[in-house]
Amino acid sequence: MANCLVAQSGGPTAVINSSLAGVVRANQLNPLYDRVFGGLYGIEGTLDDQLYDLTNLTGHDIELLQQTPSSALGTCRYKLKRGNDADYHRLVEVMDAHDITTMFYIGGNDSMDTVDALAEWARDNAPGKRFIGIPKTVDNDLVPVDHCPGFPSAAKVACEITHATRLDYDAYTRPEVFVLEVMGRDAGWLAASCCVTGDVDLLVLPEVDFDREAFLAEVRKKFEETGKCYIVTSEGAHYADGTYLSAGKAADDGFAHAVLGGAAAAIKQMIVDAGIVPRGIVQDLSRAARSSNFAQSIVDRTEAWELGLSAHMRSADPAFTGQVVGVRRDEEAAAEGLYNAWFFAAPASEFANFVRHFPSEWILPAYQGIAPEALDYFRPLIKGEPRVVMDGGIPATIVPFNRR
Amino acid sequence: MANCLVAQSGGPTAVINSSLAGVVRANQLNPLYDRVFGGLYGIEGTLDDQLYDLTNLTGHDIELLQQTPSSALGTCRYKLKRGNDADYHRLVEVMDAHDITTMFYIGGNDSMDTVDALAEWARDNAPGKRFIGIPKTVDNDLVPVDHCPGFPSAAKVACEITHATRLDYDAYTRPEVFVLEVMGRDAGWLAASCCVTGDVDLLVLPEVDFDREAFLAEVRKKFEETGKCYIVTSEGAHYADGTYLSAGKAADDGFAHAVLGGAAAAIKQMIVDAGIVPRGIVQDLSRAARSSNFAQSIVDRTEAWELGLSAHMRSADPAFTGQVVGVRRDEEAAAEGLYNAWFFAAPASEFANFVRHFPSEWILPAYQGIAPEALDYFRPLIKGEPRVVMDGGIPATIVPFNRR
Repeated sequence: MANCLVAQSGGPTAVINSSLAGVVRANQLNPLYDRVFGGLYGIEGTLDDQLYDLTNLTGHDIELLQQTPSSALGTCRYKLKRGNDADYHRLVEVMDAHDITTMFYIGGNDSMDTVDALAEWARDNAPGKRFIGIPKTVDNDLVPVDHCPGFPSAAKVACEITHATRLDYDAYTRPEVFVLEVMGRDAGWLAASCCVTGDVDLLVLPEVDFDREAFLAEVRKKFEETGKCYIVTSEGAHYADGTYLSAGKAADDGFAHAVLGGAAAAIKQMIVDAGIVPRGIVQDLSRAARSSNFAQSIVDRTEAWELGLSAHMRSADPAFTGQVVGVRRDEEAAAEGLYNAWFFAAPASEFANFVRHFPSEWILPAYQGIAPEALDYFRPLIKGEPRVVMDGGIPATIVPFNRR
Repeated sequence: MANCLVAQSGGPTAVINSSLAGVVRANQLNPLYDRVFGGLYGIEGTLDDQLYDLTNLTGHDIELLQQTPSSALGTCRYKLKRGNDADYHRLVEVMDAHDITTMFYIGGNDSMDTVDALAEWARDNAPGKRFIGIPKTVDNDLVPVDHCPGFPSAAKVACEITHATRLDYDAYTRPEVFVLEVMGRDAGWLAASCCVTGDVDLLVLPEVDFDREAFLAEVRKKFEETGKCYIVTSEGAHYADGTYLSAGKAADDGFAHAVLGGAAAAIKQMIVDAGIVPRGIVQDLSRAARSSNFAQSIVDRTEAWELGLSAHMRSADPAFTGQVVGVRRDEEAAAEGLYNAWFFAAPASEFANFVRHFPSEWILPAYQGIAPEALDYFRPLIKGEPRVVMDGGIPATIVPFNRR
């Protein structure tokens, strides 16, 4: 028998380790592979032969791993570019050295592109080497899945903070605006999810070109009507010409993506400058939303785990490569008000590099939030909590494998 | 029989409503007063005769109130200044109009000063009117209590976010600094509490004048030793001349306190400017720490509730005025590794306007964090969670009385 490798890439989430735990546990239930190696720091550490043997994690370790946020193997933003044969050869060299036939890669759309490219390249250059994708992203911007592991838990945290900070904001009489910023570069799923609790007055999404005057008119109207205006914005909010609201703070993260931050501060400042209210409060959730495990969603944690199981189980078929596993919502159950997910696998090319935007038909005009259909979409994803093992007042976590 | 009044002042906390619930419940258990009125928006709405009758809240409402963050009556930053006889007369006029003899005021040290001033004034000018304080503050800066309701829950949230964002930070190899900012204008209790999880490399407190060069030397050393540097700072970090690190952003909040924010951004920038690492991540917890009810501490929620009960029960003594209730730690129990609190009352003048700093003997030199004694102090406060009633995936809350 041979061995397998699993690695994590891109931004951490609250449940990416649950998928990792699923792969490890599946191999304990049915040892398709002699050993399950973890590749440290994504493709970066893997190319450097930094592996950690996960084969015999105990049941207790696996339970803690499921509730440990961030990426327990470490992660990277290094992209294995198409045509980079040197890296491809080096990866196969490392795999050969450890008798590894199969690599599971947990990541977002960039990583699914890597899975596609590697599988394609291996057909001619490294027969017998297989590459399988397991999706994750707090941005929820992957096609063709209903939603993506990591997003529901991030949405749950964002909803809780929205509700709590709205209560905090409402406790005061003084005229001020509140602006909450959440992650979301190109897709506004996370910002839109904040509307679930009914606390959001105005919503700014990357899917709608920002119109300063139209927006300020809505802000003015909210203050006239209620004396309050609670705003949620995606970090990627931008003007029609593509300029980010946070422009001036952009930097490069090595993936040719702008590094964002500051949309909320920009919105607050334009409201103050327009003389609508003299002051405002800015809350940037940033990493606190994607990494907190106070608020894992039970649906999210379970599906992330099951996608890990599913990827491993499907790999029993030697022809299974260049594929990604995902979930579809059971529409029949949904019609009856129930939530159920079906699991499927599809070619990685269908996931790679596409961005699934928050649907335009779910966006209310004039920054007024989201349609009832969107609420129906979000609600089952954030409902319900797993049992959490606590340690001294905070959720217990495993020592990351890259820090041992 | 006569009635009583309860109001909330200053910044909301995760458990200030638990004290409110305690007063209401105590009066159901022993109706010392015919009616329990809530004064909306602290002293501000009370002077405007905005009262809400809380007498007959149901048990279910009281349970939800205990887990609702923020100030369910609304709050204010309006300070009843000593010598402001017009406001004092107006307050007594409102109290008389509703046959109110006793006012419970839940707030920080400014509010305890108000309790002291009102009680003193009433002795000569409004005999029979009584003013009783119930402390709260996430800053934990009140004397002479062991700790103050609101702080343990804020510390619990801060510890969780510290641990989760440290895991997130550690997942990457790229050279960058992480700086977490938490509330704390003059006292560093909340920032210091973040050290409980062992994740903090360097700690910046308002209790220690900031020395730029000495600090940068420590940052450099951490990066040389471990390639990482995770920093926590209080918003009120300042240089020896009193200038805040966040200077330039200061504004006035009406209490002659500087409005802070931006210490973390300033620290990140000075590290980047010094050429130690090319980039950094800033996470400002701000209101997410004080208002989240995902992480109520069981000790905090219970003590806040019991202080509400205690204040009401002690008010059976007609001479009980100008007093504040508080908790002391049971040192005998602590010596055996157990936690127990004793309740007491003391003159409001002992609480008013003093600031209890994080003890200098608990501060390690060179920004290295806190002493073991401080860990022993913090740990029992954040340990343990109450049962939380959920609603659609987030903790259920009561509709604030000021929004009905």
